[in-house]
Amino acid sequence: MAYDVVVLGSGPGGYVAAIRASQLGFKTAIVEKESLGGICLNWGCIPTKALLKSAQVVNDIKHAEDFGIEATGKPKFDAIIKRSRGVADKMSRGVQFLMKKNKIDVVMGLGKIAGKGKIEVTAADGKKQIVEGKHIIIATGGRSRELPALKQDGKKIVGYREAMVLPQQPKSMIVVGSGAIGVEFGYFYNSIGTKVTIVEFLPRIVPVEDEDISKELEKNFKKNGIDVMVNSEVTSVDTTGNGVKAKVKTPNGEVTLEADILLSAVGVSANIEGIGLETLGIKTDKGKISVDKYYQTNVPGFYAIGDCVPGQALAHVASKEGIICIENIAFTEKKYNQRPEPIDYNNVPGCTYCSPEIASVGYTEKQAKDAGYEVKVGKFPLSASGKASAAGHLEGFVKVVFDAKYGEWLGTHMIGYNVTEIIIETVVGRKLETTYHEILDSIHPHPTISESVKDAIEVAYGEAIHL
Amino acid sequence: MAYDVVVLGSGPGGYVAAIRASQLGFKTAIVEKESLGGICLNWGCIPTKALLKSAQVVNDIKHAEDFGIEATGKPKFDAIIKRSRGVADKMSRGVQFLMKKNKIDVVMGLGKIAGKGKIEVTAADGKKQIVEGKHIIIATGGRSRELPALKQDGKKIVGYREAMVLPQQPKSMIVVGSGAIGVEFGYFYNSIGTKVTIVEFLPRIVPVEDEDISKELEKNFKKNGIDVMVNSEVTSVDTTGNGVKAKVKTPNGEVTLEADILLSAVGVSANIEGIGLETLGIKTDKGKISVDKYYQTNVPGFYAIGDCVPGQALAHVASKEGIICIENIAFTEKKYNQRPEPIDYNNVPGCTYCSPEIASVGYTEKQAKDAGYEVKVGKFPLSASGKASAAGHLEGFVKVVFDAKYGEWLGTHMIGYNVTEIIIETVVGRKLETTYHEILDSIHPHPTISESVKDAIEVAYGEAIHL
Repeated sequence: MAYDVVVLGSGPGGYVAAIRASQLGFKTAIVEKESLGGICLNWGCIPTKALLKSAQVVNDIKHAEDFGIEATGKPKFDAIIKRSRGVADKMSRGVQFLMKKNKIDVVMGLGKIAGKGKIEVTAADGKKQIVEGKHIIIATGGRSRELPALKQDGKKIVGYREAMVLPQQPKSMIVVGSGAIGVEFGYFYNSIGTKVTIVEFLPRIVPVEDEDISKELEKNFKKNGIDVMVNSEVTSVDTTGNGVKAKVKTPNGEVTLEADILLSAVGVSANIEGIGLETLGIKTDKGKISVDKYYQTNVPGFYAIGDCVPGQALAHVASKEGIICIENIAFTEKKYNQRPEPIDYNNVPGCTYCSPEIASVGYTEKQAKDAGYEVKVGKFPLSASGKASAAGHLEGFVKVVFDAKYGEWLGTHMIGYNVTEIIIETVVGRKLETTYHEILDSIHPHPTISESVKDAIEVAYGEAIHL
Repeated sequence: MAYDVVVLGSGPGGYVAAIRASQLGFKTAIVEKESLGGICLNWGCIPTKALLKSAQVVNDIKHAEDFGIEATGKPKFDAIIKRSRGVADKMSRGVQFLMKKNKIDVVMGLGKIAGKGKIEVTAADGKKQIVEGKHIIIATGGRSRELPALKQDGKKIVGYREAMVLPQQPKSMIVVGSGAIGVEFGYFYNSIGTKVTIVEFLPRIVPVEDEDISKELEKNFKKNGIDVMVNSEVTSVDTTGNGVKAKVKTPNGEVTLEADILLSAVGVSANIEGIGLETLGIKTDKGKISVDKYYQTNVPGFYAIGDCVPGQALAHVASKEGIICIENIAFTEKKYNQRPEPIDYNNVPGCTYCSPEIASVGYTEKQAKDAGYEVKVGKFPLSASGKASAAGHLEGFVKVVFDAKYGEWLGTHMIGYNVTEIIIETVVGRKLETTYHEILDSIHPHPTISESVKDAIEVAYGEAIHL
């Protein structure tokens, strides 16, 4: 089988690249070893959001009396997990439909580079076939990173995959790592009644976020009964008993934590092993495939996108990389009249869907200062927002960072109700090189959480109305 | 008492204008006859959003089993109303705090123009005083419009004010008019178990919205048990019995509807009577005060903003008008170095907070065609959105309208989960005169509802990935 384009991996990088390739007139195949949609649809973004929606309903029922409703509720762990799997399966079938609609051949099996323009695919039954492609896009994604002290056995020490399909609800859980995955699972399990302890090596949780965000999240998590330990490291885990016993080095000496289960959420490793990169000498660096701004590797005809290349390991980044990669191939082959614009990785939003939600883009206050900017910072607490009051969610804030000299919008950092839906304003504003004036002249609808961005900008420029 | 600026009315137009006036160095007073914050905070945007949040929790409990939760719940009408009042009172106290903080004198009483630079204020106890101001901003707002056939008695035929503090939950309700107020109350009462019938004179509900929005809302309302009658007119109401009997002229002849109560939601009338406009001959037209683009009336020293002038009767419009009005006064007096930019009333977002929510800005498809544009239209159903699936809200869509010739973003029309939070992207994009390319190059976070705007644009331009 010979194609113009073969995509290795059908996650949000791979399947999007394949569809765009087909749209641009390339005969396209996609190779997938497991489930169409990859980790994002099957074991990441989508099923976790389903779990988190259940958590939200549980919490609304807990606080129903605050809203004038007499209610009782009991989360049924099996049913919550089942729903989450159902949502994932539906989305995966959606990708199947899209492949068919776009006339993309799906080749199920483990793909491996077998030479110039060649992928060897080994099916589940061991049968092998060669799929040929003029252009081969590697989109093999990533997996839960394993630390030596936290070898995942999939039962008591688990990664995110097992954490979303546990056979029963644990009474207690240690979550190691407090990035998006760690805090989302910590929030979910705490909401349904599991005793959760988060252990973070760095001095604060969600360490990539602005410091104020970390403080606010920790405050909220503690208020809701989650134990948070920072500056702490799990040095060993004993799994011989009923649950786990984790030795944790803390600033105050070593302690031992006991729990039913331990979730290791210490980051993502790129899937670059066993896919034959060495066959043609495709270069890697620090565990990722090296690419240029159009995602070409050092070997002509081979490209790489998504979690297996540098840049944020996020679904929306992978998708855009896939589109840019294939549009550039099409441009080079004169099938497309416009060279795509490379990604500005400083304008990629990040979202975390625990409650309160977190959304951010651009420089944190500290990063901006470290980069030499004189900054204007505005912070608007959602306790002053009418919509947040009406929704019963007073926690959190919107923080904006501007360059004092030229008025460039350097970053936005938000924590609170629904903020993941409103970060796009900052992304678009920055993309279009807005000034603060133009944002204030864009009428924000009332009452919304989105208008708090305007309020925060007013604070930054000494024009605060509602504070 | 003599001031630089006197503001008549403390709604979202008036109190915002007063704060900005004080910031710009004007000695400022505000006159309020009832409650600080006006209708918006006390009888509009804010308390209705509190009611609607209760409705959302009720609906989540109804569907809890879909999310894997065993739950029962009973809305307690008194408690829901009480919470709503509490949220309103808190916000009103917030405005009181802001007035004090900004050193704005609050004069309680009914204000009336008493001559050049003079407002006569009559307090509740009948005491009168004169408040003098070099600049007087009229921000007296609006009230529920009364139709001759629907005289509001405040008990059985009510407006929005009474509808949010009914002494007991009606078993049945006729809602006349299906603008934002009508459908929000219809949705709220239906959610808590009142039998609701909506009667609309025009051929479709939410008649100012894009036609596709009307269809989708009607479909959803009917599915949830709301009766919808379009092309129908209430010609008379008999209130002599236990409830109301309304004669309704329909395309199929006259019918009589019976219900406990009738809510008249047929629009808003500006409060331009009894405030002394005639004293100095301040001009009005079609029931609104005539102003220029900086909100100056025909009489020097007198300005008007908000619901009592033409333009959308929305809180966020009133606030912006207030800011522009006072900044222009400051600019004219050389207290401010920048002439404010007048509002583009075609770029004002409108939001309706029933479920599914509605949010829109700019030209509808029909308006664009009627204005002579050749259009590119893209529609993305939220049933294809991963976030909507995870949230269990598959209803609705995002529809974008572009000018085919120059690529101008003419409008966005959305109905579905959380869409009121994401309309700001279109407002900012249009304000900054974006092209569709720049929006597609702005990375939308996954999974969110906001990314569906990108998806809809891809549909418009034949680059749809997820459909």
